[in-house]
Amino acid sequence: MVTIALATDFGDGPYVGQMKAVIGSRAPRARIVDLFHTVSPQCVLESSFLLSKTWRFFPPGSIFVSVVDPGVGSSRKVLAVRAWRHVFLAPDNGILSFIPKMAVHDIRVVENRKYFLTPVSDTFHGRDIFSPVAAALAEGAPFSSLGRKAGDFHRTTDLLPTRIAGGWEGKVAHIDRFGNVVTNLPVSHPVRRLRIAKKNFATLVRTYTSAPRRRPVVLKGSFGTWEIAIRNGNAARSLSLRVGAPVRQES
Amino acid sequence: MVTIALATDFGDGPYVGQMKAVIGSRAPRARIVDLFHTVSPQCVLESSFLLSKTWRFFPPGSIFVSVVDPGVGSSRKVLAVRAWRHVFLAPDNGILSFIPKMAVHDIRVVENRKYFLTPVSDTFHGRDIFSPVAAALAEGAPFSSLGRKAGDFHRTTDLLPTRIAGGWEGKVAHIDRFGNVVTNLPVSHPVRRLRIAKKNFATLVRTYTSAPRRRPVVLKGSFGTWEIAIRNGNAARSLSLRVGAPVRQES
Amino acid sequence: MVTIALATDFGDGPYVGQMKAVIGSRAPRARIVDLFHTVSPQCVLESSFLLSKTWRFFPPGSIFVSVVDPGVGSSRKVLAVRAWRHVFLAPDNGILSFIPKMAVHDIRVVENRKYFLTPVSDTFHGRDIFSPVAAALAEGAPFSSLGRKAGDFHRTTDLLPTRIAGGWEGKVAHIDRFGNVVTNLPVSHPVRRLRIAKKNFATLVRTYTSAPRRRPVVLKGSFGTWEIAIRNGNAARSLSLRVGAPVRQES
Repeated sequence: MVTIALATDFGDGPYVGQMKAVIGSRAPRARIVDLFHTVSPQCVLESSFLLSKTWRFFPPGSIFVSVVDPGVGSSRKVLAVRAWRHVFLAPDNGILSFIPKMAVHDIRVVENRKYFLTPVSDTFHGRDIFSPVAAALAEGAPFSSLGRKAGDFHRTTDLLPTRIAGGWEGKVAHIDRFGNVVTNLPVSHPVRRLRIAKKNFATLVRTYTSAPRRRPVVLKGSFGTWEIAIRNGNAARSLSLRVGAPVRQES
Repeated sequence: MVTIALATDFGDGPYVGQMKAVIGSRAPRARIVDLFHTVSPQCVLESSFLLSKTWRFFPPGSIFVSVVDPGVGSSRKVLAVRAWRHVFLAPDNGILSFIPKMAVHDIRVVENRKYFLTPVSDTFHGRDIFSPVAAALAEGAPFSSLGRKAGDFHRTTDLLPTRIAGGWEGKVAHIDRFGNVVTNLPVSHPVRRLRIAKKNFATLVRTYTSAPRRRPVVLKGSFGTWEIAIRNGNAARSLSLRVGAPVRQES
Repeated sequence: MVTIALATDFGDGPYVGQMKAVIGSRAPRARIVDLFHTVSPQCVLESSFLLSKTWRFFPPGSIFVSVVDPGVGSSRKVLAVRAWRHVFLAPDNGILSFIPKMAVHDIRVVENRKYFLTPVSDTFHGRDIFSPVAAALAEGAPFSSLGRKAGDFHRTTDLLPTRIAGGWEGKVAHIDRFGNVVTNLPVSHPVRRLRIAKKNFATLVRTYTSAPRRRPVVLKGSFGTWEIAIRNGNAARSLSLRVGAPVRQES
């Protein structure tokens, strides 16, 4: 049984249900998992970050359908990427930048229209292209039949942290429901303090319960990156932080 | 494997989970798909529109459980309708107006209490009637055993666009997560401009990316109806538009 | 086929998807049901109430994964409780107070690390402990292998209504999407009026449609407890009521 993971910015309206209808019609035995649908609309940074930190929890052979796609209907390509032991379907807009070249086995431009719905709309390729292609792969269609080989995909360096003097620079990559401010700075880089918009965060704790009240703390988050939290509070709201804000890590 | 599609206004709280518990208890092999749960509370217009534009993506033999039901517990009937190759369960409140008479094969008043939960609450027929009836059908219960035959269901003409001098009149039928304003005016009627609340929208584009910045545009939406969008913006918020607003299409 | 019901405060972000990835990797045949994810963050009262009123709709042998867990990563224990014909996994924080002692067959401290993910994070035991343990149970791991036996779990009396002179005292335990104010006062206790924050509610109706317009009414809710509603309105917003507010029932 193949797992198809849906990772979109479609929210909780009727778009995801239509994708599931199409997949279920063509690959009734596939297991569909909602990975996320509520990233900031059209935010490639957040979507790429979450996908990069969660794909490893899925069973081998999973198909990731990643549709954060402001360029839908334009000349941007849809790609299928075999990497590690999975398949990633995504528009060629940088979302897959986290996959290192050495992990990539094959890249195809998704262009074989025999797998698409007819007609293909100009505004919802998630339903008309991504879903039926994922279903076809789940049902055993050869990867190479999707389209011509591509050399590499679009890679956006500003999605990943970069080395700077005295530390690293990254971004706020996700705000969770509790208001925890998740950065893309890996915990493998030691931290003395985080700096966002001229504010310093230097109180490190291990768990939420060990944090003092009302004071923002820094801790190792479950994505493997540094987070800022306020115990029983909402750090993002209190500190007015949003996805995309630059974060400096001083070590 | 039968697909049961849930189309409600129950949001993301514990109501839908209870429906799935009941269905899963009685029809463990059925595939449950969340079609939508976040239409405007008790909005028959939006729910009917979305159902009318999405049922065709489901596999033949699907059972649609449509519970937008402000009249729950009153004398309003629950109906089961066989149409095209599907079954639609819904309160008799106009939601099914989009199904033309010629597509209807059979209509039953859902009244056979042997399929219901015991006791039946006065406020949650989605759990106590719709879910176990859908499960019974999925498990092979004869359609005719649900209850006595009915002649037709309640049809509400104000859910559908009407011909007016020089064009058509319809409504805003859905606002999506991106703020796109979805009308119920089919793209098969050509448009020169749309008119909502004395404002005119006359810039037609094919895709979001081809729209000028900040200016509302008209485009063919994925539901097969005209939409108003603002590129990288939220048209519904900027234009203060809500579901139900009248729209005039001039062709 | 075992049903695993997820009951968390994780909202609609990427946390629940990761839990499903882990469960699906290890127990591919289990049926996963989202029971609720949008209780007030870290609200043990609301979570416990909803679980107590919905578990009975699930098939025998279901596994409830209840992760409302402000103490994650601290010394609080994770428990597995066999009660009625189900298994409940929860942090030992009072959530399971609704299970009477006589219904409990066995309690284990979940501590056998062979079932856990490696490494276990300090902030997301839902993914790293609860999900793989639920999957192990679904795949047939012996209940007794989870860890040592425990005598009882933490019981919080303030989650349940108490007898007072002339009636009962309870709490607002849930606000639904329609703004209905759900108390934890069972309809088996007759009511003459409800009293919240010096306001009296004494108009009893059977269904929403039989309520007068704009006036708050009291009715038997689908959870089996008294609710306050405003027809076509939002009672919680109009009355400024929140989960946790004390309610007095005069009979």
